[in-house]
Amino acid sequence: MTEGRARIAILGASGYTGAELVRLLARHPRVEIVALTADRKAGQSMADVFPQFAPLTLPKLITIDEVDWTGVDLAFCALPHGTTQQVIKRVFESAPHIKMVDLSADFRLRDPGVYEQWYGHPHQALELQQEAVYGVVELYRSDIRKARLVANPGCYTTTAILPVVPLIEAGAIEPDHIVIDAKSGVTGAGRSAKESLLYAEVTDGMHAYGVGSHRHMAELDQEYSKAAGRTVVPSFTPHLIPMTRGIYATIYVKTGAGVGAEGVHRVLADFYKGEPFVHVLPLGQVPQTRFVKGSNMAFIGVIKDRAPDRVIVISTTDNLVKGASGQAVQNMNLVLGFPETTGLEQIALFP
Amino acid sequence: MTEGRARIAILGASGYTGAELVRLLARHPRVEIVALTADRKAGQSMADVFPQFAPLTLPKLITIDEVDWTGVDLAFCALPHGTTQQVIKRVFESAPHIKMVDLSADFRLRDPGVYEQWYGHPHQALELQQEAVYGVVELYRSDIRKARLVANPGCYTTTAILPVVPLIEAGAIEPDHIVIDAKSGVTGAGRSAKESLLYAEVTDGMHAYGVGSHRHMAELDQEYSKAAGRTVVPSFTPHLIPMTRGIYATIYVKTGAGVGAEGVHRVLADFYKGEPFVHVLPLGQVPQTRFVKGSNMAFIGVIKDRAPDRVIVISTTDNLVKGASGQAVQNMNLVLGFPETTGLEQIALFP
Amino acid sequence: MTEGRARIAILGASGYTGAELVRLLARHPRVEIVALTADRKAGQSMADVFPQFAPLTLPKLITIDEVDWTGVDLAFCALPHGTTQQVIKRVFESAPHIKMVDLSADFRLRDPGVYEQWYGHPHQALELQQEAVYGVVELYRSDIRKARLVANPGCYTTTAILPVVPLIEAGAIEPDHIVIDAKSGVTGAGRSAKESLLYAEVTDGMHAYGVGSHRHMAELDQEYSKAAGRTVVPSFTPHLIPMTRGIYATIYVKTGAGVGAEGVHRVLADFYKGEPFVHVLPLGQVPQTRFVKGSNMAFIGVIKDRAPDRVIVISTTDNLVKGASGQAVQNMNLVLGFPETTGLEQIALFP
Amino acid sequence: MTEGRARIAILGASGYTGAELVRLLARHPRVEIVALTADRKAGQSMADVFPQFAPLTLPKLITIDEVDWTGVDLAFCALPHGTTQQVIKRVFESAPHIKMVDLSADFRLRDPGVYEQWYGHPHQALELQQEAVYGVVELYRSDIRKARLVANPGCYTTTAILPVVPLIEAGAIEPDHIVIDAKSGVTGAGRSAKESLLYAEVTDGMHAYGVGSHRHMAELDQEYSKAAGRTVVPSFTPHLIPMTRGIYATIYVKTGAGVGAEGVHRVLADFYKGEPFVHVLPLGQVPQTRFVKGSNMAFIGVIKDRAPDRVIVISTTDNLVKGASGQAVQNMNLVLGFPETTGLEQIALFP
Repeated sequence: MTEGRARIAILGASGYTGAELVRLLARHPRVEIVALTADRKAGQSMADVFPQFAPLTLPKLITIDEVDWTGVDLAFCALPHGTTQQVIKRVFESAPHIKMVDLSADFRLRDPGVYEQWYGHPHQALELQQEAVYGVVELYRSDIRKARLVANPGCYTTTAILPVVPLIEAGAIEPDHIVIDAKSGVTGAGRSAKESLLYAEVTDGMHAYGVGSHRHMAELDQEYSKAAGRTVVPSFTPHLIPMTRGIYATIYVKTGAGVGAEGVHRVLADFYKGEPFVHVLPLGQVPQTRFVKGSNMAFIGVIKDRAPDRVIVISTTDNLVKGASGQAVQNMNLVLGFPETTGLEQIALFP
Repeated sequence: MTEGRARIAILGASGYTGAELVRLLARHPRVEIVALTADRKAGQSMADVFPQFAPLTLPKLITIDEVDWTGVDLAFCALPHGTTQQVIKRVFESAPHIKMVDLSADFRLRDPGVYEQWYGHPHQALELQQEAVYGVVELYRSDIRKARLVANPGCYTTTAILPVVPLIEAGAIEPDHIVIDAKSGVTGAGRSAKESLLYAEVTDGMHAYGVGSHRHMAELDQEYSKAAGRTVVPSFTPHLIPMTRGIYATIYVKTGAGVGAEGVHRVLADFYKGEPFVHVLPLGQVPQTRFVKGSNMAFIGVIKDRAPDRVIVISTTDNLVKGASGQAVQNMNLVLGFPETTGLEQIALFP
Repeated sequence: MTEGRARIAILGASGYTGAELVRLLARHPRVEIVALTADRKAGQSMADVFPQFAPLTLPKLITIDEVDWTGVDLAFCALPHGTTQQVIKRVFESAPHIKMVDLSADFRLRDPGVYEQWYGHPHQALELQQEAVYGVVELYRSDIRKARLVANPGCYTTTAILPVVPLIEAGAIEPDHIVIDAKSGVTGAGRSAKESLLYAEVTDGMHAYGVGSHRHMAELDQEYSKAAGRTVVPSFTPHLIPMTRGIYATIYVKTGAGVGAEGVHRVLADFYKGEPFVHVLPLGQVPQTRFVKGSNMAFIGVIKDRAPDRVIVISTTDNLVKGASGQAVQNMNLVLGFPETTGLEQIALFP
Repeated sequence: MTEGRARIAILGASGYTGAELVRLLARHPRVEIVALTADRKAGQSMADVFPQFAPLTLPKLITIDEVDWTGVDLAFCALPHGTTQQVIKRVFESAPHIKMVDLSADFRLRDPGVYEQWYGHPHQALELQQEAVYGVVELYRSDIRKARLVANPGCYTTTAILPVVPLIEAGAIEPDHIVIDAKSGVTGAGRSAKESLLYAEVTDGMHAYGVGSHRHMAELDQEYSKAAGRTVVPSFTPHLIPMTRGIYATIYVKTGAGVGAEGVHRVLADFYKGEPFVHVLPLGQVPQTRFVKGSNMAFIGVIKDRAPDRVIVISTTDNLVKGASGQAVQNMNLVLGFPETTGLEQIALFP
């Protein structure tokens, strides 16, 4: 490492999660960005693609094949699903010393059959799939510290796992009655030029999408079922909201007898006491996406419903930070042995 | 009536629903606006308050006390909750010939005890409360035709009643398992200068509010319970979305055995066949608020959830049109014996 | 004409201006839409492409080659620049009885050399170019009544021509000192899936574009120079604003001696007195795009600057209505001999 | 200073600029926030007012009178215009050791007569007015280092001074032909609950305001005239844009003979070479507000107009950072002898 800094590569630096990694890492005191790849924009500077970086000194965009892996300690992989598993397999073959934090969905599902069912083709790197550690830090911290390959979780799933898994594990809620009404900002869909993502099609209105078919459900099923010790299949409906960043999950749960909102709140408050990036609000307080925009925080609120055994749990994150690049840096910090919060101290930008 | 046009007064013309009434009625071929009131802005022209009306010829804003009731056939009342019941009582006492369409919540609840419970004081016009007809046209059309006082329903409730009441009545769903995750545009909160409604506090983010306490729940309880023949208490969580207009209700229901999404869809498609202002999309299609913005339409979609007995019903309206002023004009058309769609033919403004 | 209604075709019905034509014409009492074309979406229904039209009965989308021209009285052409001139030439050859209102830029410039200079290729239909009438109704009304081919002007140009041409003609301002700082909503760029038009790239920020190179300048030069009787080359800088609809032109002018803001205001107020779609505000009042959204109005304001001979003239329109489809319908009304305001009475949708 | 950190008070911490100061200072390694005042919200915690700060440890909100000045090294004053001068006078009287960075307009104008003309009353602290240093760091750096009271400049003025003053000083442009068309995000107006700042009144549309009367013009006149050595009175028109943050100034200038866009660009590129917070883009590139959102950067672009002697200079800042709290921290760094960029390294949050 140059001057004791870890040398970092970002594969897929021209998308939104790539840009967010650069934003966070450029001010991280323990790392140095040594390679940025973007196959279709190779040869350009990051400032051509994202002019906000013009004041920084950054390496030029190159293709993945041009990366000199001997000079890299850890790579973030922000490539599309499907191609990712082949790229990472190839990198590990030629450079087994590399650590990888993968932001795609390729290594999140542990069961090869489930992967094939949701993604329509057999996994191309089965051994790595088994090796990968699922990167919800608050649940798998010690495994991540030892990992070579971290599967950074999805934005919807991070937001819906953090408040629910501790409740299932504690037996506080009935796993068969979980309804997740989730709302997402637009950057969750990436920087692809689709008609449905045009300003005039998204602003000043909203709609559900992928109802009953969104792939993040597979991750939810996996983690909820693991917590319950049996198969759990929650209702999950995503909506597209006219906002740039933010996931907002309104989660309807049914508590066990005598638990109530107070019991739910106590489980979560205890579980996340001392966690630097999960803030459980006082009982009855409602979070807003604005509290977390641009920060690595998750805010969780617990509110009584009218019926005594029904509780509403609300969880919110910034899909590009705690839901993607921020959590990826948090994972990197663990993998490289840095203090977990390094480079992630930024507070939400509001207003 | 001048030239055969009904003479219309709008009480509370300086708010958003008042302006929306003017927008709709200014082009209505069977009516003439003869009085516009706004106590605090009396003396100003509508064009001072809403410059988009500058090209129209409209009466000046006056106080309610200045209205000459002998020259009025029907009045829309767009005043705050609470004062409305006193104003309407007084108007009827001095001018019993008047027809009234009230956009406040004052006459929506039939049970005086329920009113007192939700609004914190006894109703001040109990006889009128009993006389009032609840103005969901598609459910109470024949009563509305004979009514002197129509209680125009709330925006959330219109949106959540239209898709659910026919399902309860048909026995297609279990009334005890209804979860309504509702999202609203900002104009639902009116034109009051509150910090929480400032642009910088609302844009590019979202949050729930009034969880477990929103007063529209009383209307839902009333209509759902009436349909079920017993007390029904749905879960209802409203959210504030950065959009000007639009209510979007994602409703999670549990069907009876063998009903499924197809059965739910069939009930709704049959029930609303021929209705001019309710459009049931083909099974599996998801509505958007954009489809109804500026129009009097409700769009309803029915989507299968993953479990066979769970169905997601989505309903959307423009809160200022079908959720307020448009439905009020629809009610007026019935009360005055005009064709129901007169003046309401405008298609959504998209993009 | 069926039942006395003119039979209308819309070429290019799947774009925003096409949809806006359908919105306006569907409620127009003197016309019937008999053909809708969209080459790439032929075979679909308009409701597939724009679900807000689901409640209407409309012809299916077909290709231009499938149109039966014998059954068409007038066609709107909302096709891309360049191909338009060839399509219209071909239609006129096979169906000379057709009237055409063209929304592209192809027939707006009278001088073939200027066309070639700005568009990079010789015009392919020179005779039609000479025949076409430039469709700013308020300036060319009598010519439009007799026209077979109307070149509907651009949105920026309509907005900047209306307030300035009468001032140049009256000698009230110095033609060599006109600075037009123009701002546009996003729909001005159409419904094409480009990265630069994505929600996340447009919302909550702004920028200039096409500085010194925007093609609408050629139209401005043409009309300003015609008014001045000599070459006029204004400064014109367009900006992209996070709003769906709306053009806002802040125009800095220098008046002749003794004219001042009062003189400028008097010229415009006199010129547009009695015009149904141009509203000149009282001196000193500032228009907003909100006053015209969804309507065919232009609002014009005149404000004193600090120096006595400098005046700020502000003009605003909805780029899809007065700046495109509304003005096109206004032109159609003239061409077909209907009252000019028919079908265009809608007031702005605010809020 | 505790542990070598400077002890900082923020007067007026419940507004947007106050919150922005907390955001920036909370991560500043050389300071400690020891007092936060908000007279009307005294007793509450910052997390009550701005929940994004809940994870931080911050002092409670108190009244100004409750501040213990002996424990304060430097105070930021984010109070309303007018009362500020009295508060600061009083603080200096009782605690002359304090350094002050004032974000109000009270000490920006050097000429007492000009102050009285624009603000309608004589200045209440004339000696301090003479002592205050105008805090555009790039112009007055050495004076600021020695200052006790810094008058932090306005957001519009910072944005319009940075690109224009060097051009006037270099004789590159004609001072009598400067037209500034300025656009602002909504937070420039603060957190006051006014109807005109409601979401529904601001979103999806735009308008000019304060045309010919905006008080920031006085600052522009002062600095432009100082640079020119004679009175300069630019045209300045502010507009309200539906965005949270951002100032965008499109400035039309006339160059001296033979200067042109190249000459203008060269002057600015030379002047700002090495400046950490002003980035001059390559000639012809257009800045966007997005490049600076959340950061302390100003981006400047220079573009040729069509006429050879006319040039368009575009400047953009985040009104809450470089236009207010960020520049205030930059001033604090100078006053306290810290490296100028400390705590201000954050890159723009985009998307």
